[in-house]
This record gives sequence, structure tokens and C-alpha cells, in this order.
Amino acid sequence: MAEKFIPLSEQPLLESAHAAGLTTGRDRLAAMSPQCGFGELGTCCRICYMGPCRIDPFGNGPQTGICGASPDTIVARNLLRECVGGAASHVGHARHILLTMQAALDGKAPYKIHDPAKLFAVAGQFGIATDGRAVDDVARDLVAASLEDFGRQDGQPLNWLRARAPRKEFDMWMENGLMISNPHNEIETAMHRTSMGNDADPVSLLLAQLRMGLVDGYAGLTMATDLQDILFGTPQVTTLEANVGVLEANSVNLAVHGHNPLLSEKVLQWAGRLEGEAQAAGAERINVVGVCCTGNELTMRHGVPMAAHNLQSELILATGAVDGMVVDIQCIWPSTAMFASCYDTAFITTDEMVHIPGATHIEFEPAHADENAQAIVRAAIAAFQKRQGKPVNIPNVKSVGFAGLSVESIVGILSKVNAEDPLKPVIDNIVAGNIYGAVGFAGCPSLKFRDTAMTERMTKALLKENVLVVTTGCTAHICAQEGLLNSQATERYCGDKLKGVLTAVGEAAGLGAPLPPVWHMGSCVDNTRIVDLLAALAGKLDVKISQLPVAGSAPELVQEKAISIGTWLLALGLFVHIAPAPRILGGPLVTQVLTNDLEGITGGKAYVEYDPEKAAAGMIAHIAEKRAALGI
Amino acid sequence: MAEKFIPLSEQPLLESAHAAGLTTGRDRLAAMSPQCGFGELGTCCRICYMGPCRIDPFGNGPQTGICGASPDTIVARNLLRECVGGAASHVGHARHILLTMQAALDGKAPYKIHDPAKLFAVAGQFGIATDGRAVDDVARDLVAASLEDFGRQDGQPLNWLRARAPRKEFDMWMENGLMISNPHNEIETAMHRTSMGNDADPVSLLLAQLRMGLVDGYAGLTMATDLQDILFGTPQVTTLEANVGVLEANSVNLAVHGHNPLLSEKVLQWAGRLEGEAQAAGAERINVVGVCCTGNELTMRHGVPMAAHNLQSELILATGAVDGMVVDIQCIWPSTAMFASCYDTAFITTDEMVHIPGATHIEFEPAHADENAQAIVRAAIAAFQKRQGKPVNIPNVKSVGFAGLSVESIVGILSKVNAEDPLKPVIDNIVAGNIYGAVGFAGCPSLKFRDTAMTERMTKALLKENVLVVTTGCTAHICAQEGLLNSQATERYCGDKLKGVLTAVGEAAGLGAPLPPVWHMGSCVDNTRIVDLLAALAGKLDVKISQLPVAGSAPELVQEKAISIGTWLLALGLFVHIAPAPRILGGPLVTQVLTNDLEGITGGKAYVEYDPEKAAAGMIAHIAEKRAALGI
Repeated sequence: MAEKFIPLSEQPLLESAHAAGLTTGRDRLAAMSPQCGFGELGTCCRICYMGPCRIDPFGNGPQTGICGASPDTIVARNLLRECVGGAASHVGHARHILLTMQAALDGKAPYKIHDPAKLFAVAGQFGIATDGRAVDDVARDLVAASLEDFGRQDGQPLNWLRARAPRKEFDMWMENGLMISNPHNEIETAMHRTSMGNDADPVSLLLAQLRMGLVDGYAGLTMATDLQDILFGTPQVTTLEANVGVLEANSVNLAVHGHNPLLSEKVLQWAGRLEGEAQAAGAERINVVGVCCTGNELTMRHGVPMAAHNLQSELILATGAVDGMVVDIQCIWPSTAMFASCYDTAFITTDEMVHIPGATHIEFEPAHADENAQAIVRAAIAAFQKRQGKPVNIPNVKSVGFAGLSVESIVGILSKVNAEDPLKPVIDNIVAGNIYGAVGFAGCPSLKFRDTAMTERMTKALLKENVLVVTTGCTAHICAQEGLLNSQATERYCGDKLKGVLTAVGEAAGLGAPLPPVWHMGSCVDNTRIVDLLAALAGKLDVKISQLPVAGSAPELVQEKAISIGTWLLALGLFVHIAPAPRILGGPLVTQVLTNDLEGITGGKAYVEYDPEKAAAGMIAHIAEKRAALGI
Repeated sequence: MAEKFIPLSEQPLLESAHAAGLTTGRDRLAAMSPQCGFGELGTCCRICYMGPCRIDPFGNGPQTGICGASPDTIVARNLLRECVGGAASHVGHARHILLTMQAALDGKAPYKIHDPAKLFAVAGQFGIATDGRAVDDVARDLVAASLEDFGRQDGQPLNWLRARAPRKEFDMWMENGLMISNPHNEIETAMHRTSMGNDADPVSLLLAQLRMGLVDGYAGLTMATDLQDILFGTPQVTTLEANVGVLEANSVNLAVHGHNPLLSEKVLQWAGRLEGEAQAAGAERINVVGVCCTGNELTMRHGVPMAAHNLQSELILATGAVDGMVVDIQCIWPSTAMFASCYDTAFITTDEMVHIPGATHIEFEPAHADENAQAIVRAAIAAFQKRQGKPVNIPNVKSVGFAGLSVESIVGILSKVNAEDPLKPVIDNIVAGNIYGAVGFAGCPSLKFRDTAMTERMTKALLKENVLVVTTGCTAHICAQEGLLNSQATERYCGDKLKGVLTAVGEAAGLGAPLPPVWHMGSCVDNTRIVDLLAALAGKLDVKISQLPVAGSAPELVQEKAISIGTWLLALGLFVHIAPAPRILGGPLVTQVLTNDLEGITGGKAYVEYDPEKAAAGMIAHIAEKRAALGI
């Protein structure tokens, strides 16, 4: 075991927090350990009040629940409910964007379509006519097709699945009973199915799990990414700064935290417009910074600094320099409100569904987005005024890099190398072994793996073996902070072959520097982009995604959303590394299916390994297998 | 503590099961005890992978989760997810009936409308024109109004809520932010809301809980009850036999188990039609018997014997005399399949969503209901043939009573007393104190309370104090087995005043015997009927439901469905007794709100008491308060 790793930027903030009498997540995890083994193995069932039932993995005591549910049944039900929690989160996110787009088209919300090209491209996949039509008319048809999915009771496949799924995988899902229709029916049925006395067959439950992954993939992630691009623009390459050092002592620091760009886009807009008010209050400017995934959204589209990943959301407040933290949905630790109150940060919740004791609630309604955003910015300015004369503690730590690597911007770069066939250079280099393979990192930072710098070490181990890395979500923050998103990292960490490719492409594309070795592809909903890129590569090679020399990883699993995203990737046929283990190890059949048998159906395979270098080696072995099977 | 109570019918079956080497639920509970205190208190959180977090109720260790979630946040999130599990089950049930009615109207499923009067009554509440219209046209409009609820994204109130909720309560909900719209949006949002880093405010979570109760009440229970009555007929008073003694050694015993009458109605129909085949196979007849709630459905509409409640679903198989057990949805213990395999029972699962290892699966599709039902009946006949020559052990224990006390049949009886104003005699007797109050019992039998005969003793304690009891679900089985549903029970258990009323009404209605003191009002979805009766009484008195001298009880809580039903009752303003305690005691604020503060909003109040006589006394004290407040 390596010695405990605490990032440079975090050490002084931990000390500040402790000095202020606050406990941090690190402290709470330490005090909470060891954690419940039944819970970790998945064999604790609280689904009915005959329980809680717990199955002893060493064979002592009853080996089924009181109702007779086997450990595999218990594990599979719990896992499916986690998957529902994740999928429902993304479907809710997507539906919120959809309804706002509808309101905007009806003139009832101050948003408009910023990317007609993306709209037309997506609409085209739906079979919606685009030639010569007005942008808003096409958008209305796309909205209608999306609403049809939520309203349908005809059992027909989800429009979003039919339009956006890769062909070979779509066919494989249809053949294997993995068709999905109305995402809400699927969510209702999954909760029903897992309630006491319904599905007890682990295999049937795992099929439902895979379908729930598709619900997340198409009625959640893909819908959210596409509609956000249409509304706010598809990201183009931009530079970024990351880490807490992006805070400015003499500016109004306004942190946006959460996931939904409907809020953060408006806050950013009004921060610009109200800069005069900030200056009148004595500030140099308004410094909007991003935390967690809404941070990624703003970084991808506007180069806004990435101040903190999820785990640092409480620590950044210990700088005493954050004047406002405005949050929308998902991954908001309740502790942040307590930190905020200790440092006089204006801590603002905005979503009807998210209230936190101690927070100020300014309900953000798309219809009143402009007024709401102004109120939020002004609250931060007022907090800045109150902060004057108080000490701040901003660790002078930040990194630089590139963001904005959407599929469209990647193709844009590559088309400067080969305008006719932009993906050809990538495929040629994969075939030649210069790019040995590719791995996508997604998900959160976990306290359980920060001490060993799991994500950073896995990434470096892969780059060294000429494996290209793409990333989304909070793992993108980790990579950014570690300096993995810039051109210097190519020189520093990549094997010679990968270094050669990235340097050559960077030059050919006229960037004047190598491409970075880790590509920031967006927020966690933007795992869509990774899948779209894989689908494009597989399509060009006329193979299934499961045949590509690639893998995915949630190296520091925290959220139910990672379970549903990971399930989508398994349904797509990907090898998915996960740490810590999903709560399945108490169910031998479930473990066997997910880590082995599934490969014979979708091609997907779950892989658990806690040691970063071994995990990287496991992924490389998988890539080697796939290369061999392709004969390259 | 009284000595351990094991019903007469169960003792020999427990012995048979043990002799066969089987463990029963009782054995598993005993071996599983003591159960996890964190789970029981609600302060175990497994919502993200930083956990499992557990909060020590004695103040040792961290007093929040790793994310900072307070015990109240943890408790409220877990409780809301239980409520979603229950509501999704009932919404799924209702939606299944709805889609089958739609298919039937389109000529695509062999069902038809049996109760046009009920259809017209319900349609009238929706504002659907009925005068002079064809039955199917009215039904189509009702189907359309129901489908609109599932498809709506306009935020308007659920049609079913608007049409079917009592007026004063509807207004109170609107005023208190408890409006519900599309039930699927509510389910999605509740799962999203409770995922990590969203709602952390226990009050906000409890409001969502109340809304989820309304989702269950109107998009689940009420929709299911009404549509089932429309399709299969509104129950009328009928006699019943209950307990395992209804099995017949020389007949094909076919047990239907679950909740959905789409299956059981067809099985019953085909059992009649295929009796010749059974006789050809050597059987006297085909004896269809009911288990759990689909048993209640068949009893209410056809007087089918109630062979076993949920807890006895495995024991009844130990008779060796059950030839077929066909199950649909909900409350099917996986252990039943194992028992079935030990006794050569044809154990048949039928729902796409319910698979059980060891079962034969005959997927029951409404479009092929007739063929599916025939296959099921024939499987039981074949098992009967295999059973010949093997011993059976049918305890000769059964009770008789009345079922079929729908609101319509109650009004029918009362109209023989007062044709102009059927409810007047009830109200007059309540006012005069002859009926001191009324209590509704619902839910399951729990192993945790069978030893003390919780339901039976509570019921008797209430009857003695002239409190009328109504019941649904498996508590109706318990009451039936205890002989509480017949006229003799009125003589035996009721206080003089109640006895007088029930005798007088029974005579006036021409029954030739007293009304029973416990009214069987149906299956668990039929809690709708109890609420409709209360709404009618409150409407007549022009008071709120919360002002009535009544209470509800889930005396032996098992299912998530009881949580969502109970939540609906709390939203309606009822005093709701529950045992065991919901998993809230680890959250002081949640406990305070549900057991106290809520009374100031909806009038509802949760009440936990494990001792049957004390629980009855608590309910009587509540009734006394309500009487005093009404000045009666």
C-alpha cells in the first residue's frame, strides 16, 4: 500500500476546517469504519418489515431471507433499485431539459436554440424532416417525439433508443429481450418488481437491470446531452484551469455546483451582466467557478474554471473565499450547507426537489430564469461585502488543460488531418498499435480511493502503455487537477507510440502542441459522447462495440448513477472496471453473471480490482484480447 | 406477554413441513433474530457507495452520514423509497387493469364490462357524459382520461385525484403543496430526490412522502378498485368459508395467489368449464381456493373459499393437497416454490415481472387469457393425477362468514332500512353512541405479531367497546379464520350497543340475522372502499374525514404497500395505528412530524403500539376525542 495521498490543495483546507471545529467527509469515513459487511456484500434486505434480513456469507444462520429470498435474489433486487435511483436521476434531468425546451419554443422560458446543426443532426436520426425547415419547427418535432416516449403505453421501442442506439447493439438488445419502451413504465415496473414477493429470479432481475441501464442511456444520458447541446451549444475545444487556486481573494467568487446547465448558464450570463454591481461593491470582478458536473458543463462550453470535484465541495468552502455557492441537483452533500454557514457563504438551493437545512432557497423556475439568476448573483455580491476584512485561505494550487472534446470537436480536429475521412487516422493508429486502445473514466472521487490516488495512478499506468484515456464527470476534475489534460502530460506520461500520435495529430491540426493524453469529454451525462465516439469507430470498422480494444472504468464508485451508467456500458458490450465492488459479492450467481456469463450475451463484463496498477493491467489484458480477436 | 399463539390449522402443517425437512418463515425469523437495530431504526443508509453509513442512536460515533446527511434525512429518504415501492406496485397493478380494459374495448382481450352502473357512476365523477351513451363509448372516455394522467407533462392535477378525492381534502392538499400530477413523474422524482446529494430536508421529504401516498391512493388503489369493479362487477354480499380446511382431498385443489383478478377470474371461469376433464381424471371437482388478495377478490365477487393468508401460503402446501398454485404479482414468498417442489404441486408463475426459481412459467397475457387459463387449470389436473395414492394432511379447520361488503352493497343493505337516506341509520347510531366509532384494519399478517394474535385481539377489544370494524387484505383472512365475519361474532364479541345496532339493521334489512361486526370490504387495493365510505359519511355530515370518530390500522405491517397506503390515510387526515414501528424512530424530527405535527396540517397522525389491548385503547381514546370535538 502506498502512503496516504492527500492532494496539495486539500491539506491546508482540511486544517482550516478542523480549526473551525468542522468534520470533513474524511473524518466521518474514518469514524464510520469498519462499515457493515452485510451491506457491502449486498445481502442485507430491508424491502419488507419481516426483515431486516441478513445472510451470513460464511454459511451460519439462515441462508435465505424470512420470505425465502436467496442471497442472489436479495443482491439482485438491491442492485436493481440502485440502478433505478441512478436512471431516475438522469431521466429526471433529461425531462427537465426537455420541458424547458418545450417552454422556450412556446415563448414561456428565456432560452433558445444555440446549435441548429446539432438539432438537425439529432432530428435526422429520428427521421424528422429537416430540409429547408425552420429551426423551431424541427425542434418542436423533436420535443414531440420525446414526449411521445414518456406518454406511450403501446409497448413500442423508445424513440430515443431507436434513433440513437448503435445498430448492431440495438438488434442484439431486441433479440435478447432487452427492448425498452416508456422509461417511466420501466422505472415503475422495476420498483414493483423488486418489492416483496415479486421477482425472485436473479437472472430475470439482471435482465431488468440491463434494461434499466438502457433507460439511463437513452432516456437519460443521451437525451440530456443532445438537448443540452442543442440549447447551449456543442462544446468546442477550450482551455481550462482547475483546482481551488482558481478562487480570487478580491473577486466575488460564485461557485455553481450540481448538474443542470439550465441554472448555471443563466448564472454565468448574469454574472457577466452584473459585474458593475460587483465592482461597485469593491470587487475586482465576479469569478464564476464550477464544482462537480455543472462545473464540467460550464467548462466544456465556456472555459469556466473547474474549482473542485464533488469530494472537495465542502473543502472549497473552508477557503473562506467562496461568496456564493448555488446548487441545483445531485451530489450536493448536506454538509456543504453547514460549512457554508460557518464561513458566511451564501448557500443557495434552487431546485424544487432539493432542500437542505441551513440553505437559502431561491426556487429556479425556467420561466423566471433571468430574475432567479439575478437574485442568486446579487446574493453572492452581498456575501462578498460581508466577507471584507475576514481572512481567506486559498491554496495557490491550480493546473491548466483542455476541455471541450465533444465528438464533434474531436472530428473537427481530426478533419484537419484527413478532411475526407476524419476517423481514419485514429483507426489507422489503433490498427498499427500506436494507440494500443482506449479507456473511458467516469464517475466520482471516492474517499475510499483518494488516499491511494486511484484514478491518477490508473490513468498514468494506462498512458504509459499507449492507451488513450477519455474522461467525464468528477474523474475529469481529478485528471485536470493532476495536470493530465494538457500537452505537457503527453510528453510526461505517454508511452512513445501514443506520444508520437498525439504530437503528430496536434501538429497536423495546427494546434502547435501535442493533443493531451486525457480528453475531457464532459459531465457525467456526457458519457453519451464516449459511447457516440465508440459507436462511430465500431461503425467504421463494421464491428460491434464489444469487439473494440477499449474499456470503461468507474474507478471510484460513489453514486447510484454510476451503477446505471455502468449497466448501460455492460449492455453495450463493454468491459467495465469498478472499485469498490458493487454490492453483489454476497450473490454468487449475480457475481458470476456480471463478471463472466454476460460476456456471452452482450459482450459486457464487470471487473473489480482495487489496486490501481493491477486494475490498469487488467484493462490492458482485456484490450490485448480484443486486439488479438480483431487480428491487429 | 401472552403465551405463544399458533392457530389450530397451522400447528399440524408446521409439523408436516418440519418432518419434510423444510424450514418455515417462523423458523427463519427465529434464526434471524435479533435483527439489525440500525435497519429497524431507519438509520442505515446504503444510498451511495461512501456508505453503508449507520448512525448510532446512543450518540457514539458520527451523528451524520459521510455526506453529512442527518439521521432524519436518512430516515426520511429510506421511508420515501419504501413508499415508492408500495405506490409503484399499486400503480403498476392499476395500469395493467387499465391497459387490459383498453385492449378489451379494442376487441384484443377476452374481457368485457360487467358493471355498467359502476362505470357510469365513476365516469360521472370524471365529468364524462353518460346519458344515453353506449357503455363502451363511456368506457373509452374513462380509459382516455386515465391514459392522459400517465402521459401528462402539463403539471395539472391527476384526473383521478380531481374526480375521486373528497372535496374538503382535495382543497386542503392543494393549499398545502400536496397536488399530484402524472404518477410516473412523481415516482421518478421521488427516486431522484432520494438519490445521493438531493433532498436533505426531512420536511420536504415528508411532503414528498404524502404526495406519494396520494399517488398510491388515486393512481393506484382507487383506479384499480374502480376499474376492477367495472370489468368484473362490484361485489355484493356473499357467504364465505375460510382456512385451510376448505381444501378437499378428492378434488383438484387449485389455489390462486397474488393480487390481480385478470388472472384469477379467468382461472375460475375455466375451472368451471374444465370440470369434466377433472372428473375424467378421477376428481370430484375442481376446487378453486384463494390465497392472499387475489383470494379476497374472488371471495368478494364469487364466494370462493379463502384458504390461506399470506403467511400461510407456504404452510398450505404442506397439506400435500394443493395440486396447483398459480401466482400473479406481489407477496409471493420465494419459499412457496420450494414447498411446492417438495409436494409435487404445480407451481405456476404468470407475470412477465415475476419469476421464481423452481416455478413453471406460463406467461399470462390478457390477449391470450383464455388459452393461458386453460393451460393452468390443466396443469393442476395433471398434478392431481400424480398425487393419487399419496397421503394428504388437511387440518379440519374452517370458519364461515360474509364477504362482499362494498360501499354499494352496504348502501344496498342500509337502503332497506331507510330507502330515502341509506346512510342516516349509521349516522344516527354514531351520533347516539351505539356505534362508538369505526376502525379499518388492513395489511398483512406478520410473523412478528402472530404469536400474540395481534389482529384478533385488537379487533375483539374494539368490538367490545362498540367500535365497528371493517377490514381488507390479509387482515380480512385473519378475521375470517377467527370467525369474526359472521353473525355469531356479533353476539359473542360486541358491546351491547353495537350488538343492538347490528341486530336491528340485520333484521330490518331482511337478513334474518345480525350483520357481522367485522365487514370484509375486499383486497388491499380495496382500501379505496373504506375511504369512499368515510368520504360519504363525512360528506353527509359536512365535516372533514379527520373529524370523524374513526381510525385505521396496519396491525401487522409487512409490506412497502402498507407504508404507501398508510401514508395516503395520513394525508386524508386519519389516525393510523402501525405495528411494528415504521423505520423512523432513529429520526426524531420525522417521528415528531408523523406522530404529532402532521395533525396540524392534514389531521393525520401515526400511532405505534405493539400491545393489542393498549393499541385498541389508544384508538378508542382517539375516537373519544373526535366525538367530543363533534359534540356527540
